[in-house]
Amino acid sequence: MISYNMDENNTLKIFTEYQKYMEDFEGDRERIKSSVREIEIPLRHLSSVLLGVHKNADPQSIKKTCEEVNKLLQQFIECEVRNLSCLVPLGQYFRFHDLFRHSIQRIVFVVALLHYFENETLINREETAKLLNLDLSWEDGFYLNLDDYLLGILQLTNELSRLCVNLVIAGDYERPLRIARFISELDAAFRLLNLKNDSLRKKFDGLKYDLKKCEEVVYDLSIRGLKTLASKK
Amino acid sequence: MISYNMDENNTLKIFTEYQKYMEDFEGDRERIKSSVREIEIPLRHLSSVLLGVHKNADPQSIKKTCEEVNKLLQQFIECEVRNLSCLVPLGQYFRFHDLFRHSIQRIVFVVALLHYFENETLINREETAKLLNLDLSWEDGFYLNLDDYLLGILQLTNELSRLCVNLVIAGDYERPLRIARFISELDAAFRLLNLKNDSLRKKFDGLKYDLKKCEEVVYDLSIRGLKTLASKK
Amino acid sequence: MISYNMDENNTLKIFTEYQKYMEDFEGDRERIKSSVREIEIPLRHLSSVLLGVHKNADPQSIKKTCEEVNKLLQQFIECEVRNLSCLVPLGQYFRFHDLFRHSIQRIVFVVALLHYFENETLINREETAKLLNLDLSWEDGFYLNLDDYLLGILQLTNELSRLCVNLVIAGDYERPLRIARFISELDAAFRLLNLKNDSLRKKFDGLKYDLKKCEEVVYDLSIRGLKTLASKK
Amino acid sequence: MISYNMDENNTLKIFTEYQKYMEDFEGDRERIKSSVREIEIPLRHLSSVLLGVHKNADPQSIKKTCEEVNKLLQQFIECEVRNLSCLVPLGQYFRFHDLFRHSIQRIVFVVALLHYFENETLINREETAKLLNLDLSWEDGFYLNLDDYLLGILQLTNELSRLCVNLVIAGDYERPLRIARFISELDAAFRLLNLKNDSLRKKFDGLKYDLKKCEEVVYDLSIRGLKTLASKK
Repeated sequence: MISYNMDENNTLKIFTEYQKYMEDFEGDRERIKSSVREIEIPLRHLSSVLLGVHKNADPQSIKKTCEEVNKLLQQFIECEVRNLSCLVPLGQYFRFHDLFRHSIQRIVFVVALLHYFENETLINREETAKLLNLDLSWEDGFYLNLDDYLLGILQLTNELSRLCVNLVIAGDYERPLRIARFISELDAAFRLLNLKNDSLRKKFDGLKYDLKKCEEVVYDLSIRGLKTLASKK
Repeated sequence: MISYNMDENNTLKIFTEYQKYMEDFEGDRERIKSSVREIEIPLRHLSSVLLGVHKNADPQSIKKTCEEVNKLLQQFIECEVRNLSCLVPLGQYFRFHDLFRHSIQRIVFVVALLHYFENETLINREETAKLLNLDLSWEDGFYLNLDDYLLGILQLTNELSRLCVNLVIAGDYERPLRIARFISELDAAFRLLNLKNDSLRKKFDGLKYDLKKCEEVVYDLSIRGLKTLASKK
Repeated sequence: MISYNMDENNTLKIFTEYQKYMEDFEGDRERIKSSVREIEIPLRHLSSVLLGVHKNADPQSIKKTCEEVNKLLQQFIECEVRNLSCLVPLGQYFRFHDLFRHSIQRIVFVVALLHYFENETLINREETAKLLNLDLSWEDGFYLNLDDYLLGILQLTNELSRLCVNLVIAGDYERPLRIARFISELDAAFRLLNLKNDSLRKKFDGLKYDLKKCEEVVYDLSIRGLKTLASKK
Repeated sequence: MISYNMDENNTLKIFTEYQKYMEDFEGDRERIKSSVREIEIPLRHLSSVLLGVHKNADPQSIKKTCEEVNKLLQQFIECEVRNLSCLVPLGQYFRFHDLFRHSIQRIVFVVALLHYFENETLINREETAKLLNLDLSWEDGFYLNLDDYLLGILQLTNELSRLCVNLVIAGDYERPLRIARFISELDAAFRLLNLKNDSLRKKFDGLKYDLKKCEEVVYDLSIRGLKTLASKK
């Protein structure tokens, strides 16, 4: 009878420890969540400034927008991204991945769109990780997950196809051709991947509509003789 | 123009590497999935032998069943569990957690039920981890997650409440009293935890029905004066 | 025994009071519901008259439509809106909010569309509240909730993007440009808000399709040289 | 053109204010949510201690349990409940009601069960509100909503019907009769209410099972002649 009661107390003692353990975990979780919330506001600002290119789509304005984004981005990486990456302990990356994956994807999108405007090429995962001060492998800590990188890249095509339309409005008949070619290459590249029936596959399905839209713009330019004009320039 | 095509080839080359990376990851995934499938058959056998207690609920039969399960369990831990734990690399535990968590919970259930029959106490997480050759912290590798441990324990009460009924059928009027008390203690212990609205909370809601069932068995024994008999022994 | 029955009667007496209390509450609820129903008919009429602009999209017709709506709106605000706002007691606004929020959002939409036609600017919450004789803070009574204002505004873009198409049909190549710019500004403004994953976020997701539609109309005008014509006027 | 750009800036400025307003609201919300979380742990402890009566159902133990709960409750009301009630501003009670209603209902349950053990009567809403330092009308601030009171009371019957079983186990054949009568009165009282098809109606549907269970216990006692024995005592 005595030993029995002792064990009961023991069970309660152990469960009190479990409760403490759960609270600690919940604390970590809350800290990461709150850091992700803090990232959201400047990130939205960054992408809002960058998407200003739709409104002012002439080369000078695009260049100026990129310069502004570049400055904001530097600080954003050094403060907010760094802050988040410090909060996720080595080895628990995948435990908390769901909390920050969407933010990371959006950051990749911003970086990739900026890089495209500056170089008209695709920024690869290695370059993106380096720019963001992230690791390349989960073994080293807070790293740039391949899926997150690819999902960020897939957000690119939607804005670029929309930009084609706005470029024509701004009288630029040349850049839409290059965008169409870029998206066509991206399409070919993604087709190399054996995508499973997941979010990556679903987002990739959207890419073909963006490609189609761009091709229609190029077609409109061609049929009106505006494409030849542009190419000759 | 030339530089342009070079970049295109570069993108394709990089995506070919991404595809290789994805295949490697998919390979890891498949190996773990297949190891989990291999665990399932002996695990189902183990739990099937152990649940034989419902059919032969007298003390001798229960003792014999436990001895048999103990032998099977030794081999199962040394082969199947060991095999799985080797497949999950340090630091990727949470990446693949969804693949094996249900198996681990079921193993915890088997171990905890066996331990209960042998000791009439609750095996704690530390003891369970030691028995299964698992670590106690994610930092050390393949570890026994607290949630998985608790979800395994919650499978216990359902079988024990069913056993109460079968014990009475087998003429054992004493053990149901002890089981009712054990579940009542477990109930008190779980009430210490601040369960969020997740799978743990849902499973815990089932415990109170198991407890009620046990109390009703004890009630039936009491009202017929069979409880007093048992207590006097 | 006697004291026992007295208490029973007491419980029944108290529950009879609870029933009365519930009936009173239900009465308030029904009165508000019925007032909302009474609002619906003239509101549908108002928005139907205003949406006549799709059919007759020339400047004169739009102006005439606005004059007609203005007259109807005056009476609507003085009777129906006033009536509803009197029914909701100070301090119970949020208790009954679900009953009238959709009507308020629709009224905001009508007022904002009318204001846009007359001024080509966005009516802000303060102006809207003043026009509707609503308060600006819940502390003062029946007030214009920020979410309701914003959800009303988001109904605007859908009609304006549709109007772009109808304006071109009516031979107006200028106004679609201004509408596209207006929606683009609205898009930038909403991007400043930290929208949670709620109805506001969902409705805002629709805005980008409306913006895209407008841009495509402007694109069609540009590529056919009709935009330049319009700009020169 | 200049006036146009000014208006654009104005819109952005106004939306920045809206964003600030939203953040303030979100801040209030978070503070209340966090206060509710702080309530949860001592509340779970309180109800866990009180439910100890199932395990030790003799009169002395019940009395001792009540004394312990009474002490804990005093402090709980003065700290946690007071804390929460201060956070909800007058007039915004219904705006945040969803955040704290479940906690309030659970507190009502604890208070009502304690009161039942001490008086064998139903605590009414007025007494409950007084005990908890809550107001009786929404006009005065943080008040005890009638629905919350009734939903808390309905949690009572489930525990009392379970207690009937455990009382018989503990050899108390008298109290189950009184509990059956109490639940029967509660059933009659709730039948006076015109419940709509909501959560109250659903929970009330559970009461009839609890009543049935109690009646079965009384029946078991009667048929074995244990009821008469009890009544004669």
